[in-house]
This record gives sequence, structure tokens and C-alpha cells, in this order.
Amino acid sequence: MKGKVFLVGAGPGDPELLTVKALRLLRSAEAVLYDELVSPEILKLIPATAQLHNVGKRCGKKKTQQEEINFLMIALADSGRQVVRLKSGDPMIFGRAGEEIEALRHANVDYEIVPGVTAALGAAASARISLTHRRQSSAVVFLTAHQAPNSEAADWKKLAESGATLVIYMPGHNYIDLVTKLKSAGVANDTPAVIISRASTPDQQAFRTTVGELQFSGRLPAPSLLIVGQVVRLADAKLLEVASPNKGISIPAELISAFATDSISEDPVA
Amino acid sequence: MKGKVFLVGAGPGDPELLTVKALRLLRSAEAVLYDELVSPEILKLIPATAQLHNVGKRCGKKKTQQEEINFLMIALADSGRQVVRLKSGDPMIFGRAGEEIEALRHANVDYEIVPGVTAALGAAASARISLTHRRQSSAVVFLTAHQAPNSEAADWKKLAESGATLVIYMPGHNYIDLVTKLKSAGVANDTPAVIISRASTPDQQAFRTTVGELQFSGRLPAPSLLIVGQVVRLADAKLLEVASPNKGISIPAELISAFATDSISEDPVA
Repeated sequence: MKGKVFLVGAGPGDPELLTVKALRLLRSAEAVLYDELVSPEILKLIPATAQLHNVGKRCGKKKTQQEEINFLMIALADSGRQVVRLKSGDPMIFGRAGEEIEALRHANVDYEIVPGVTAALGAAASARISLTHRRQSSAVVFLTAHQAPNSEAADWKKLAESGATLVIYMPGHNYIDLVTKLKSAGVANDTPAVIISRASTPDQQAFRTTVGELQFSGRLPAPSLLIVGQVVRLADAKLLEVASPNKGISIPAELISAFATDSISEDPVA
Repeated sequence: MKGKVFLVGAGPGDPELLTVKALRLLRSAEAVLYDELVSPEILKLIPATAQLHNVGKRCGKKKTQQEEINFLMIALADSGRQVVRLKSGDPMIFGRAGEEIEALRHANVDYEIVPGVTAALGAAASARISLTHRRQSSAVVFLTAHQAPNSEAADWKKLAESGATLVIYMPGHNYIDLVTKLKSAGVANDTPAVIISRASTPDQQAFRTTVGELQFSGRLPAPSLLIVGQVVRLADAKLLEVASPNKGISIPAELISAFATDSISEDPVA
């Protein structure tokens, strides 16, 4: 019998921000293919009996080609396994799920998408910023500074002029380029902006600034995210100065044991 | 001692798409204020010992003013209770969390935001549409057809021209008005669109069409959502014809009992 592939969102980092369904699937997975940005605390929830594959694609490090990931997913499902393809955040937002879905359809492999809390929402919750505050903005845009070659680039100028809150995924560390791009798009120097790094984890940091001052910001560790717009004014000033708001909450043992597995590894990644 | 208010996202409808944290907080809540759109299966998870307040604000029905909601949240927290303010989807996306946060800050009440899976992501997962498919769109916009009075309206023309995928929350049933608005914004008649109703629940329905044909679509039950853009072309055609992909999965009893409470009601809403 053929197996099945679940494309699962792992949420922004805090294991408690996994969905109940994601946790159930992880606990019963026979193989897990995960991205570099999935947090170690979440990987610890995967049973030791499951095959673990790091298929991270971070810039400058070891790269797994998309074709290899597709091949591996399909081979594992064809061998009858229940496969979890674990992506940070939500699979349908900058997760390249589109290409994996096409490959799975083409190979006639059964699959299901399990949505997750995307990074923007984890960051907005941590910094206490309503992305569509009623009086400030009636739309929010998720965009990325990383552009796929030969893809349709969204028009930053139009997006900036629309009045929508901008959430920039994967802003990278070259803030100068980003500021240039934002300014060319017509974003004013005094527009409020906040960089949020490792939202929802104990290492969380946030740095509030303006577009004009952004290039002088410290380089916060990945994964990070930039929110630009008037809604940032309404952020909780106190909170934005504070690192580590999450006091190391993890999923309670009773909850983990509620999902039956053969055995639980302390550290299956090791 | 003062209590605390948790603004919690309930996700798109399926109780399994609650986050683990949301489930934990619901199971230990002393008072829950919930919106009309939160699904009955989720409300059943709330212990019978908790006070339940329906503070729904759906058009044409009983309305609770925002001021009353704020007053109630603050009064409950001031009386020392752990209060969950439960919102469908994610609190920071069209959830009016901004106003509630301001009221809580002003009253000096401790609060925390717990992000959730927003409706767009639930719908995209159900219809298997990658909202930012690498070759089709490098940005996605969440906007709403319902506009607050005196608020800054996002410029639909600019958003439509940007090339971003558009996700329209609360499209309502007056598709003619919506089509007029989309066409005035320059969206071409043949642009693919899909209406997704009650995504992730057993009643889920999806109807794929184009912007030019949208006004002839059946009126699907709320909550619904409209996705407009070339990414819709890549949706799973088979799936979009099928209602009820979710075979009534609910949260396993072991999992619910993993969160200690005084007692569990069969139907606390009754």
C-alpha cells in the first residue's frame, strides 16, 4: 500500500504553537523531512523510530535541491510510509509547497496540507501589533525580499502606495538594500518599522525603528521578519525592548504521551 | 490578585487546527468570550466550570458593542479570573484585537496574544493552493470587503495591479458589488477566483470560477473567503468539486484529558 505525504506547518518556533493536528502527525510519522528553520524543540517531539531528513536550503550552507526533496518524499510514500514534510510557519506562504504539490500530484501520491501559524502572525502576536488595525490599515501584504529567478515579482511600489501594512519575510541582513528597495517604492523615511527575530521563542528579539533608520539597526539572528507601516506605532513599546518573553514553555509530557508512539527519543536529531 | 486576558486565535474551524497553546488555555479558562464564527466543536472543549459569553457581532443579528466586550474582559480580569478572548482565525488579522489591546493597556490589565491559523491559510490548505507559488506570485494580500467607518481604506487598484494574490475576507453574499469593486480595481474578467466556505470543517465547500463569472456563483454559507489570482489555476481541480473532505476528525479524548480541569461538559453552550 502506498503511503501518504502531509505538508505540515510547524508554526513560528514555540512548540506550543504547533497545531494539535501537526503534533499528532509528528508523533505518528514514519519519516520527517524538515527545513533548517524548524526549531530543535519541535524536532525533539518526533519519535526515535521515525526517519529524519534535514532538507534545509539556507543560503551559503549545504543545499538540498528541490528535485531531491521531491524525489525523497515520493520514494518514502511509495514504500508505504506516512511522511511528514515539515515547514516552518505555514506551508502555503513562501514555503515552496506549490512545487512539492505538483510533484506529488504528478507521481499520484496521496497528500494533505496541514496549515500552520505563519511567521507574520507569530511576530505580530509577540510584538502585540494588530496587522490590520481598524483605524490604520484595512489590508496586510506578505512579501519577500528573496525573489525566485524567472518568477513574477510583485510590484513593491504599488503595494507600498496601497496603504496596506507590509510584512517582509526573510529580510536578510543587508538592510541597506532593503531600505533602498522600500524607498524606491515610495515608502517615507519616517514610516515605523520593526524587525522581529525568532518570534515566539526564548531568544526572541524585536527592534523598533523607522525605514530611514533601519540600516543602522543591529543584525538580529534568523529567522527574522520586518513589519512596516503605521500599525507599528501601536505596538507595545515596553515589550519591544524586552528579549525572551517566552519563559521556556514546552509541551507538557502528558500531552506528548497522549499520542501513542513506540518510543520517545530524547534527541532524535543527534 | 488581578487576572489575565489571553487573546487567542481559534483557527479556521477544525478543532485540530487549534494550537496546542490555545487548547491548553481553553481547558483552564475561567471565562471565555467568543465570537459568533468560532465553531461549536471548539466551544465544546471549554470546561463547564468556565463562564461563557457569546459576544458575536454578526451583521443583522444581536450585536455586542466593542465597548461592552472591552468592559466585560476588564471586569472579569479585575475579579482575578483567567480570561480567554477567543477569536476565529488569528487575532491580529481582521479580529479588531487592536481596540481590545488598547482597552486592556489603558486598564492596566495583563494580557497576551496567542496567534492562530488565519482563515486564508485554512482555506489555502483545504483547496491546496499555494498563495505565493514561486512562479506565479511573490506576494499575497489579505483584505476585507467590510470597511470600518473613518478608517484608512486600502487602495484595491494598487493592490490588484501589484501582481499579488488577493485573499478577500468576509466577501459577503453580494458578489455583484464585489465583482464591481474588483473590476474597477482593474482585475481582468478571466482572472481565476475561488470561494471557499467553512474551510477545514466537515461542511467545507469550494467553488472555482473567474472574476467575470463570480456573480453567478451560488451563495455559500459563512464564514467564507475569496481567493483571486493566477495561483488559483494551480488548485487541485478534483478537490474543489468535493464538499466535506474532513471526515469529522475531532480531538482525541486522551488529548483533552491531558489538560486537567474540574469537569468536562458535553455541551457547555446549551
